[in-house]
Amino acid sequence: MSAYLKEKLNKVIRGSNRATYNKDKINSILDAGFIGYVSYIYEGTAISIPMAYSRIGDKIYLHGSLKNRMLRAILDADQMSMTVMHLDALVLARSGLHHSVNYRSATLFGSLKVIEDRDRKVEILESIINFMVPDRWDSLRPINAKEIKSTLVIEMTIENASAKIRDVGVQDEKEDYKTDIWAGLIPITQVVGQPIRDELLPDHVETPKHILNYVNRV
Amino acid sequence: MSAYLKEKLNKVIRGSNRATYNKDKINSILDAGFIGYVSYIYEGTAISIPMAYSRIGDKIYLHGSLKNRMLRAILDADQMSMTVMHLDALVLARSGLHHSVNYRSATLFGSLKVIEDRDRKVEILESIINFMVPDRWDSLRPINAKEIKSTLVIEMTIENASAKIRDVGVQDEKEDYKTDIWAGLIPITQVVGQPIRDELLPDHVETPKHILNYVNRV
Repeated sequence: MSAYLKEKLNKVIRGSNRATYNKDKINSILDAGFIGYVSYIYEGTAISIPMAYSRIGDKIYLHGSLKNRMLRAILDADQMSMTVMHLDALVLARSGLHHSVNYRSATLFGSLKVIEDRDRKVEILESIINFMVPDRWDSLRPINAKEIKSTLVIEMTIENASAKIRDVGVQDEKEDYKTDIWAGLIPITQVVGQPIRDELLPDHVETPKHILNYVNRV
Repeated sequence: MSAYLKEKLNKVIRGSNRATYNKDKINSILDAGFIGYVSYIYEGTAISIPMAYSRIGDKIYLHGSLKNRMLRAILDADQMSMTVMHLDALVLARSGLHHSVNYRSATLFGSLKVIEDRDRKVEILESIINFMVPDRWDSLRPINAKEIKSTLVIEMTIENASAKIRDVGVQDEKEDYKTDIWAGLIPITQVVGQPIRDELLPDHVETPKHILNYVNRV
């Protein structure tokens, strides 16, 4: 199945012309980032916290300390939602209410499972690091038993999802086009700077290929 | 009072050395952006949605259509939380679990009120547009009675808030500093591109000063 079902929870009501339930489109939004806003209920209040994630198929993975209040609250709820958004442009219209932004956002809903298997935990932690910077994991000091044990790894199966994409120009009221009010887009991009070496890194250590690839990616 | 009280809802447990309750610091994080992740409960599930906001003093303002499902759900709950985060760098350590990011994030909790007064609604919509691009409002076609009427303006009074800031280098396990594993920071910045004029804008309309100021800001 290449699209999520449109159900009560994920059905986009406002701006439904910008909505998609297509899995490939949703996955491309997820794969363009590595930080998602995970929502949970704490003491009756909805809270969202930015967290690093990885995606493998229709699973989202999170990790944290066993003591993490949020992860415990999410597990208690047995379900979670996560939102990922990329801002692409400011849309500056001729009237205030037609101001908008161009963006790609995805909201996911799913059920949760704690990953207990040692080898699977390591594979998932590898995927989370490599989601941040591809090919980084293999260059690192191997994870040890104590670290594996003290880390909580959570798997969310995406059961419901929707995305909204706005990637068009200004849309104004017909009569406003006759004015001389400046309107247009201002592109917004997240850019990667040159790597800053840790001061304690020995001089002979060269910047590895996976770092150069990352900072020079288009 | 220059700091929020540390209470159950906003007390930072994990990484509390990076936490602050200082109002000036929290406000500077809020004022560095204009999109917040607003959380609410819908059908028993916590959801967060990115929304444009403005801040005036200890108030956060949101707006939307009267028909907006999320705004209605937020109002039903009578309270909301909002998170704003700026990503500043990837922190690439010598071991997987010390990977992190440098960031500034603020999470706010507060009570809600619908703004009904016509003039106050207009002032707030002005503040939301100008929070996105300073000085934009005065250049626009004035808002009309129908637009004001169909727009829901919500005021949140910040009652509880905390921020977390990480702005330091790599922190590794002592023994890992002896390795030759590359470690360091990769800066991440959100940059503003050159404005793209609306195709329907008459040629004689020059790019106004508030747009030039915005795209050339440091």
